[in-house]
Amino acid sequence: MGLHPAIAAVRQGVRRTLVDLDPGATVVVACSGGADSLALLAATVFEAHKAGLRVVGATVDHGLQEGSGEHAARVVAQMAGLGADETATARVQVDPAGLGIEAAARRARYAVLDQLREHFAAQAVLLGHTRDDQAETVLLGLARGSGGRSLAGMRRTFDHYRRPLLDVARADTVAACLADGIEFWDDPHNADPGFARVRVRQRVLPVLEDELGPGIAATLARTADQVRADVEALDALAATAYDDLAGPDGLDLAGVQDLLPALGGRVLRLAALTAGAVDAELFHVHVAALQRLASGESGGEVQLPGHVTAYRDRSHLLFRRTAVAG
Amino acid sequence: MGLHPAIAAVRQGVRRTLVDLDPGATVVVACSGGADSLALLAATVFEAHKAGLRVVGATVDHGLQEGSGEHAARVVAQMAGLGADETATARVQVDPAGLGIEAAARRARYAVLDQLREHFAAQAVLLGHTRDDQAETVLLGLARGSGGRSLAGMRRTFDHYRRPLLDVARADTVAACLADGIEFWDDPHNADPGFARVRVRQRVLPVLEDELGPGIAATLARTADQVRADVEALDALAATAYDDLAGPDGLDLAGVQDLLPALGGRVLRLAALTAGAVDAELFHVHVAALQRLASGESGGEVQLPGHVTAYRDRSHLLFRRTAVAG
Repeated sequence: MGLHPAIAAVRQGVRRTLVDLDPGATVVVACSGGADSLALLAATVFEAHKAGLRVVGATVDHGLQEGSGEHAARVVAQMAGLGADETATARVQVDPAGLGIEAAARRARYAVLDQLREHFAAQAVLLGHTRDDQAETVLLGLARGSGGRSLAGMRRTFDHYRRPLLDVARADTVAACLADGIEFWDDPHNADPGFARVRVRQRVLPVLEDELGPGIAATLARTADQVRADVEALDALAATAYDDLAGPDGLDLAGVQDLLPALGGRVLRLAALTAGAVDAELFHVHVAALQRLASGESGGEVQLPGHVTAYRDRSHLLFRRTAVAG
Repeated sequence: MGLHPAIAAVRQGVRRTLVDLDPGATVVVACSGGADSLALLAATVFEAHKAGLRVVGATVDHGLQEGSGEHAARVVAQMAGLGADETATARVQVDPAGLGIEAAARRARYAVLDQLREHFAAQAVLLGHTRDDQAETVLLGLARGSGGRSLAGMRRTFDHYRRPLLDVARADTVAACLADGIEFWDDPHNADPGFARVRVRQRVLPVLEDELGPGIAATLARTADQVRADVEALDALAATAYDDLAGPDGLDLAGVQDLLPALGGRVLRLAALTAGAVDAELFHVHVAALQRLASGESGGEVQLPGHVTAYRDRSHLLFRRTAVAG
């Protein structure tokens, strides 16, 4: 009997991601117990052992649902049964203050995965995000409307993290588990329409498939790759330009005016962030106001989130921290 | 009685677009007889006459529907009634061979509008595309999946053309016509689900509004502006890099390798187009193959649409026209 095509697809993604690891290295697989991360774990055990690598299966207990401890214990047993060399469970405290529950859980999860990676001296941490997750991320970014940055989707790699399944359909991870006899968990959050991501998955993507043709998830994922390359190039060019134009007298505005608008806007954004403006609250409207100030189209001052004020001093843009009352 | 807010919104868009025209200049308004272009015409007459400009109302008869000649005559009479200084109707031949009916009609329309602009020595031609048209264009581009280029939507200006209503909701053009007592035409094509654009308008955008929140059309239009600025910057930088790297021996590949990937890909694309590859058929897959050839990751030759073959000669990339059999 030949290899099931879904298993082959998952393994191919994993094989490509492991190719540059050192012989004997350790790789951590983050595993929720869902079909995507269990298929990832099984494929990683197969490919890593063939390549002489060691696999740590890690599951994170967010403590947000009743019985989450028992669930984590089941996932650990399952990972061991699938051949992980070591397993780990990490319990995190999610503090949603100021962030929202999804963002807070994500932050706590990455913090503990960083610790596990250090503990096991692992060279890489693999995440099970699929092509469908990527498509959902692009559509959510589109609804946020913050330009290329929000359409760029998830990166294939960052820091020590890698996403080997970004070209693999979610349905293939399910089929791979079924073909391998792996029982997987359906997170009830994945069916809760209170989450925008769930609504995108259940209601938006099917309509796009119906009206604009099949393969929309693959198309969105491909778009993300291209837009991400564009955004990374412009961010890198803007960082260089900022270093050239920023000095003790402030930001040289004649130099900013000479830049293409997409670069000039990014340089102004970098200047504002360097001055202490808050990244998550610095929107296009703020950058547009800085552009008008920089070009001389408007005078006065621009208030930025994080109690930062931008102003012009002849040929330079300057910032000061605003006194906070009370 | 105050000015109706929808009329005010349309006039504001027009006022901004006219601000840099020379005194006494002529402006052509392309008018289909639909609500958007009639609202545009009425607002242009008001703003242009205030600014001492002359307005030509022009309608194009594509000859594609029964009674299109009578329709064009009605639009001409209506434009004159709304105060256009001159009116014109232009009949075009649409030859859909190899293009599809929509693209062929568009090409014919712009060709005849170019002629009208020259005939009237007009400084600008105004088009009635609204914010909703822009949102639809972005979603259609997303489904095509050719990266930032396809998400950049319609330009606010190109050549002599300007789109003053790109920040105005389609509903406002309808409301402006109703408030002004202007009878407008509902193009039956606008309700024909055989067109992808109609399906986006009637089925996709309403679902996005329901699931991801109101204001999605404005968000998509804003995204298009930002992505377009990014794409224009990278295209300009790539054109400069191409000029530096292209020479009689071919394209200097060491120089291409030094570029950021988003720029390197664009330089390779420009080289292929300069060699005669067909723009509309040159896809990401071709550029990716050129990138592998350029980096030495693959050898041999790359076949490009338009009977062009790319090959490597030591440190340079070269192209030759492929002999076409028979």
